[in-house]
Amino acid sequence: MNEFNSNSAIGVFDSGVGGLTVVREILRRLPNENVVYFGDTARVPYGSKSKNTVVKYSRQIARFLLTKNVKAIVIACNTASALALDELSRELPIPVIGVVKAGAQMAVNITETKNVGIIGTEATIKSGIYSEYIRSLSKEITVVSKACPLFCPLVEEGLLEDRITDDMVERYLSELKAYDVDSLVLGCTHYPLLWNPIKRYMGPAVKLINPAYETAKELKQMLKEADLLRTDNAPATYEFYASDGADKFITFADSVLPMHVKNAEVVDIESY
Amino acid sequence: MNEFNSNSAIGVFDSGVGGLTVVREILRRLPNENVVYFGDTARVPYGSKSKNTVVKYSRQIARFLLTKNVKAIVIACNTASALALDELSRELPIPVIGVVKAGAQMAVNITETKNVGIIGTEATIKSGIYSEYIRSLSKEITVVSKACPLFCPLVEEGLLEDRITDDMVERYLSELKAYDVDSLVLGCTHYPLLWNPIKRYMGPAVKLINPAYETAKELKQMLKEADLLRTDNAPATYEFYASDGADKFITFADSVLPMHVKNAEVVDIESY
Repeated sequence: MNEFNSNSAIGVFDSGVGGLTVVREILRRLPNENVVYFGDTARVPYGSKSKNTVVKYSRQIARFLLTKNVKAIVIACNTASALALDELSRELPIPVIGVVKAGAQMAVNITETKNVGIIGTEATIKSGIYSEYIRSLSKEITVVSKACPLFCPLVEEGLLEDRITDDMVERYLSELKAYDVDSLVLGCTHYPLLWNPIKRYMGPAVKLINPAYETAKELKQMLKEADLLRTDNAPATYEFYASDGADKFITFADSVLPMHVKNAEVVDIESY
Repeated sequence: MNEFNSNSAIGVFDSGVGGLTVVREILRRLPNENVVYFGDTARVPYGSKSKNTVVKYSRQIARFLLTKNVKAIVIACNTASALALDELSRELPIPVIGVVKAGAQMAVNITETKNVGIIGTEATIKSGIYSEYIRSLSKEITVVSKACPLFCPLVEEGLLEDRITDDMVERYLSELKAYDVDSLVLGCTHYPLLWNPIKRYMGPAVKLINPAYETAKELKQMLKEADLLRTDNAPATYEFYASDGADKFITFADSVLPMHVKNAEVVDIESY
């Protein structure tokens, strides 16, 4: 039984470490909130898996987060947001926010040419969920989407500024450029780390949208409206959990978050 | 309870679809044998996971294969062979063969300069298991190993002949080339698909070793010695199972195997 109140933590989950970029934005915008993060590092990546599998994994993680009495859940993974947000929103007793809706809303707000580009994993793009949200907000907008499966491995290999990355950026994005999009949603948590090469190729007229940033804004608004902002004044606490104990988690966390993460506790997520 | 006899199937497993290249070699060398294949497509890749996780997953898969009464298990995944072969060999009532030992043995047999190169996933290379086997066979050999994390995503993106792949081949392998290795173990099931760019870069004097090929040879020898070769003359049967139902399995199977694979049955592997 989940017993939350306004002083309970916010639960955030991702297929791996990428969602820590969403935690970073939450820390900036909601520095008084406690956060419980779960990264499914054992089963990463979600981007090439089927909807059934991603929904099943997301449910297991939500059940784990409920044991921490979280007051809201943020799905920091674009793929899980695309494939499991509806299911979790319907099934859980607490509010659930996904990065996809916040990113889509922002694209609608800022586009002038009414041509919006979306990039993400194969599963996110195949789900068509970004286009669906955007069209439900405005019928006038043309959405051009493109899966970029090599971007994540390139980021994880640290090739953020590299001729190979520039080459792949050009191959993946040439179509979107030809379509004259004026806003581009970076629909995977790893992609904001490729901000510079993407910006360089797309040019100054194209606005890049980081859904992590928009999600933190939406989260703050939602907590305010639901009267769920933390009132306790003790320093906020941050707990990190992962399904695999590889050292990578800490390394990545240290490169993304403003504080040192000492350890990520390993959780047997399959038992939830 | 596993009740096998010489007419039982051979169980083969991999973290995903790559292990089908091992099935292909088994079909060539042992066309009369029945095969049950399991690909852990939901939790792929294993190459970046910790030993604990890989051993746990391998045990679940072995338990599943035992329900099919297999007479032997082939670990077609280099990472699982590196991290879980000892555990499974000790725990299971049937023979277990891994691709790593067969590949290591071949390298020892053919090297003349006594400098052997190994390439594989991060987990395989970090485990040091190839070097360990090779040194246990011959103390004179120097092993130079290198993790190539981008090779799998490049293969999966279909960039088998591409300037980006050539570029990465050069970056990853320049060290091995400088060491004057005369044999190079392709220590990941995806790497034989990069045979041409690797061969081109390393030059004709360097022999490439495909552990899948060596494993099928070892398997045949082992079955013969244990008097476990199939005697039944009915056509051999092939069953394919996977933990995720994505279409990719069939596409890859069709590109690798000599027959059309109609479907891969989805198994809830976490329940084993």
